[in-house]
Amino acid sequence: MKTFMDKDFLLGSDTEKHLFFDYADPQPIFDWHCHLSPKEILENSQPKDLCELWLGGDHYKWRAMRSAGIEEKYITGDAAPFEKFSAYAKTLSLAIGNPLVHWSHLELQRYFGINAFLTEKSAKDIWDVAQRKIDSEDFRPQTLIKNSNVFALCTTDDPADDLDFHKALKGSFSVPVLPAFRPDKAINIETHPFSDWVKKLGKTAGVDIKSYEGFKTALARRMDAFKDMGCAASDQSVDRVVCIRKSEAELDHIFKKALAGEKLTEDELFGYKFETLLFLGREYSKRGFAMELHLGALRNNNTRMFNSIGPDTGFDSIDDKKQAVGLSRLLDCLDVDGLLPRTILFCLNPTDNYVLGAMLGNFQNSDAVGKIQLGSGWWFNDNIDGMEAQLKTFGNLGVLGTFVGMVTDSRSFLSYPRHEYFRRIFCHTVGSWVEEGLFPNDEDALKTIVEGVSFKNAKSYFLG
Amino acid sequence: MKTFMDKDFLLGSDTEKHLFFDYADPQPIFDWHCHLSPKEILENSQPKDLCELWLGGDHYKWRAMRSAGIEEKYITGDAAPFEKFSAYAKTLSLAIGNPLVHWSHLELQRYFGINAFLTEKSAKDIWDVAQRKIDSEDFRPQTLIKNSNVFALCTTDDPADDLDFHKALKGSFSVPVLPAFRPDKAINIETHPFSDWVKKLGKTAGVDIKSYEGFKTALARRMDAFKDMGCAASDQSVDRVVCIRKSEAELDHIFKKALAGEKLTEDELFGYKFETLLFLGREYSKRGFAMELHLGALRNNNTRMFNSIGPDTGFDSIDDKKQAVGLSRLLDCLDVDGLLPRTILFCLNPTDNYVLGAMLGNFQNSDAVGKIQLGSGWWFNDNIDGMEAQLKTFGNLGVLGTFVGMVTDSRSFLSYPRHEYFRRIFCHTVGSWVEEGLFPNDEDALKTIVEGVSFKNAKSYFLG
Amino acid sequence: MKTFMDKDFLLGSDTEKHLFFDYADPQPIFDWHCHLSPKEILENSQPKDLCELWLGGDHYKWRAMRSAGIEEKYITGDAAPFEKFSAYAKTLSLAIGNPLVHWSHLELQRYFGINAFLTEKSAKDIWDVAQRKIDSEDFRPQTLIKNSNVFALCTTDDPADDLDFHKALKGSFSVPVLPAFRPDKAINIETHPFSDWVKKLGKTAGVDIKSYEGFKTALARRMDAFKDMGCAASDQSVDRVVCIRKSEAELDHIFKKALAGEKLTEDELFGYKFETLLFLGREYSKRGFAMELHLGALRNNNTRMFNSIGPDTGFDSIDDKKQAVGLSRLLDCLDVDGLLPRTILFCLNPTDNYVLGAMLGNFQNSDAVGKIQLGSGWWFNDNIDGMEAQLKTFGNLGVLGTFVGMVTDSRSFLSYPRHEYFRRIFCHTVGSWVEEGLFPNDEDALKTIVEGVSFKNAKSYFLG
Repeated sequence: MKTFMDKDFLLGSDTEKHLFFDYADPQPIFDWHCHLSPKEILENSQPKDLCELWLGGDHYKWRAMRSAGIEEKYITGDAAPFEKFSAYAKTLSLAIGNPLVHWSHLELQRYFGINAFLTEKSAKDIWDVAQRKIDSEDFRPQTLIKNSNVFALCTTDDPADDLDFHKALKGSFSVPVLPAFRPDKAINIETHPFSDWVKKLGKTAGVDIKSYEGFKTALARRMDAFKDMGCAASDQSVDRVVCIRKSEAELDHIFKKALAGEKLTEDELFGYKFETLLFLGREYSKRGFAMELHLGALRNNNTRMFNSIGPDTGFDSIDDKKQAVGLSRLLDCLDVDGLLPRTILFCLNPTDNYVLGAMLGNFQNSDAVGKIQLGSGWWFNDNIDGMEAQLKTFGNLGVLGTFVGMVTDSRSFLSYPRHEYFRRIFCHTVGSWVEEGLFPNDEDALKTIVEGVSFKNAKSYFLG
Repeated sequence: MKTFMDKDFLLGSDTEKHLFFDYADPQPIFDWHCHLSPKEILENSQPKDLCELWLGGDHYKWRAMRSAGIEEKYITGDAAPFEKFSAYAKTLSLAIGNPLVHWSHLELQRYFGINAFLTEKSAKDIWDVAQRKIDSEDFRPQTLIKNSNVFALCTTDDPADDLDFHKALKGSFSVPVLPAFRPDKAINIETHPFSDWVKKLGKTAGVDIKSYEGFKTALARRMDAFKDMGCAASDQSVDRVVCIRKSEAELDHIFKKALAGEKLTEDELFGYKFETLLFLGREYSKRGFAMELHLGALRNNNTRMFNSIGPDTGFDSIDDKKQAVGLSRLLDCLDVDGLLPRTILFCLNPTDNYVLGAMLGNFQNSDAVGKIQLGSGWWFNDNIDGMEAQLKTFGNLGVLGTFVGMVTDSRSFLSYPRHEYFRRIFCHTVGSWVEEGLFPNDEDALKTIVEGVSFKNAKSYFLG
Repeated sequence: MKTFMDKDFLLGSDTEKHLFFDYADPQPIFDWHCHLSPKEILENSQPKDLCELWLGGDHYKWRAMRSAGIEEKYITGDAAPFEKFSAYAKTLSLAIGNPLVHWSHLELQRYFGINAFLTEKSAKDIWDVAQRKIDSEDFRPQTLIKNSNVFALCTTDDPADDLDFHKALKGSFSVPVLPAFRPDKAINIETHPFSDWVKKLGKTAGVDIKSYEGFKTALARRMDAFKDMGCAASDQSVDRVVCIRKSEAELDHIFKKALAGEKLTEDELFGYKFETLLFLGREYSKRGFAMELHLGALRNNNTRMFNSIGPDTGFDSIDDKKQAVGLSRLLDCLDVDGLLPRTILFCLNPTDNYVLGAMLGNFQNSDAVGKIQLGSGWWFNDNIDGMEAQLKTFGNLGVLGTFVGMVTDSRSFLSYPRHEYFRRIFCHTVGSWVEEGLFPNDEDALKTIVEGVSFKNAKSYFLG
């Protein structure tokens, strides 16, 4: 029996260990998609306790606790910090097969030197040890980032954001904190008060937005500003792409209806989204931004909890709508003009793995190595099975050695061990193939592949 | 090489064996969803032969035999019992990878002490040994149930059923045989002569049903009667939920059209089903019934055989319609009023595993531990791969230690070894994780998880 | 560590090796579905070099090279043969997890005796060794086929084809080269200049086609001609079947519209396809042709490359449309008249595995052993994972011992080692089950299963 999560966690054969310890582990981290707050990085405050660090904003943990029948009071409510932590500990000892077991213990091990199994019984001791560490050592964001060997990180930013925190960080923090352009509010205009946001965007961009034309001008100006701050990536959350074409005149009409708060038809909404994605993609291509597409979420399923504690609190799940045709049309319409940017496709529904994995090949060319990518196991797939499925899909349908690797998609400064988690899974997968005689034990090829997927591919993909 | 299906069947490491023999195996069986006939349990007749026991009504076996090119005469026709048995034996030796190989040999081993491999050649010997047993020992339903260490079982019953067999069993049989409320005929009103059934329902409920209101009254009265007989669960077979809302007046109109035998539009039908499911769910919630939803079947595909031998004879298969949005709306509409019952989602199409597994988390709360459940591998998924996929989905997306475990969904009194089959698969899965260092070898946690999933969780989930 | 692709490639235990070397490997190959050119077999020319053999028409390799960022010049362009080969070698050493690694090295090993790993560095040596072989030995198609122990092969032929090459081969080549009826142009009438093709068909059939009736007469006559040349199979590429029924009069109207080059509505197109598939299926049934259905492709996604280098050049991918209901209706409408031919269902989207695998059972009967089949892992699924998934689906839902086994779907005379690849995977899968005690180590049963799936089942399925 292997010891629980010891130094050889997830690594079986010597080949797997060699690949991990000699090639993967020494590479720095390029955290090219996360939701870390530039404000919090700048403010650089010491956290209070493990409850704040773990349960302050992590909807993965909240969902698990609700599944274990824990009262909301101990989750997002007003229970005492240790009571919440203890309720989480109780949940964890039932959560066999859930990646939270691994994530939580990786964090206990790497940041607190704690190797015990967290249960209701061990919760108090673990809390105390952690608390002593937090009280006596530096757990501020900038320290955590630097100590994690982070080469650079990309936050996720609204086009209407003035990027002041990024500017301030540029002068004061040694690790590059680059903005990423996330125009969700320009695309999913049915989900929020659109005109308020357009006003804010116009103000930041210095454009008086009265038409779709002006809207595009403002977005393009913000892209330029993002580029000035080092932006290399854009990110769009679109549950589904539907190919409905609209003329400029129609778009202007739809845009003005939306500004006026009028309800759009489905035809108008999908047409607006498709054309706006085309506009964005072309502009990204011109500026060298990569385009990330996060597809397949079904959000805000629980009305009662949405009304009580708002969005992004653990009530989203996986949709099962068709993705193939719309996505093909979007990428083709960009490609046909030579303006398809480097693109990374993420699917939340793992049944879309093969649809997206095969889609890549339709649009690959010598613009970049691995120009179109299948994103790593994301959100509900961010676990051993989901990651292995993604790696196998990428391997079977494409050229896995070009993969840009892990994203944390994280909101926590303690999440860097998840790169280690991914690299261990990757080295296990690849090492097993070598052990089984399915790929040659060719040191050069394996070094290139493992260092590439761990770090180097992402670096050249985003930064050239 | 491991011996074929010996005592360590499906169990590799010592950890797996320890978990199975020490924790899983000693637990009683709570067979909370099956299709055993209360009439047959009450009548308690000795079976004639192995053909009656195995081929009398098992469409799994029939399908396999047809796949092997066996003539219908030897399947549901008038061939002699041993000829049918022999044809099945011939099929079985080609059916490598099919769970029938395991189910059949588990039954030969556990009930008849026969360890040989059933082939066309060994069929005669096996038949003879079994026949001597059947001629000399007690194979009556009540004996089979008691000897299987069954704590309680839930049958599947039409609301129009008077539950007389359950009443009679209550006084005469030591194992609780509880009814479960299965209102398929109230929901899928397009598939049968609706007005006849409504008449029957009205008679049993003592309600003269003239309106949708009266219909609901009758259903609610039957729920009360079911509750009096110990009912703890309801079960609905709905191929797909579509959210179309209807007013009470519209529902009354639709109901009356259906009663009059008029054809409903798709809009009317989906609207009727959605609102009726809402009504049922709310009433279940008030009475503490769990709500099972069996989704994704495509039934009666073969017209020729349907006309010849009727429904449920092996001509159903798996549909691929979208499930996410409709299901989300159904659960949310119940939850928003605080009337979402404990709910178990079963999907026939395994590609829905992740959609349903992620859906659970949207509606979990402290009403119950594991309030919303992903049902175990069902029907076409009731095999090693299907069960492992379900366990991994549940593990990755939820808290597996809260799982209510196996259902047989069975029509046979010999089916109890399938609980053993499930428990072996479960202990193999969980034990492997421990062996690989993915979960701690924590005796307390593992005991709680294995005993829970084998029996205790179901007991507290259904019976409190 | 196992040596890379040695004699025990893909085989672990002694059981696996025994099944492969003693039962699978000695069987001849029945290549019952491929795209080999009868013209090229007849012409029987010696190839020039490894670039012609490998990169002349293989869109799998082209896609991989584009994914690795190789310029089109080195793929389908005018670069020198060795430059292209070298670019492919560079791609391959990054393509860990891709079946091209196995296919390419199997071909180097089996045809050229080369055991080295092909990388950019080793490319020159490997090229030189191969070139010396090609310059000095017989690599002509007929020799390659005969040396591969091919029992017979079925090409893929347009109904308008006069089959002259098949006639000529009949007298001159010892291996039967049978035509297979592929009426794609009769079905997918929206994708090509229909009237030109109808004219050609009429000419070959000796029918002046003026109506749908005449069209059907011409197709039936061609089926007779195909049957005279030994045809045993038909093949249809239909992305999706939708059940829309049309009268003869409507069909005639639709047909004439199509002939006149008028655009059809979606209703007309789906109705035409459904009825034409019914017509074809019935005629196949009368003539004893098996009916292959290849479902789920999304073709010609890249407009720019389609305009530049045409179809079938590596820009197709996987669709995600619903398949279950339409397919059920098609098979049922044929079955209801007793005119459902033996049918093989191939799905490109692996999420359809269980839908199709369960569909089989709806229409099995004693017309044939394994009358309805799930086709082996096809195109994007033609890899270890895809094949294992197909085998497990077939095993869990049907009777795997009746499976007709591998198809290459190939355009290359070097592709026969892919039968070996499949057989190794099959023996690994089946042998593992035996090793784990999941199926008895019964020599008779295993011999029957392995020889059957390798060759004998296909022979009796297609040729009786």
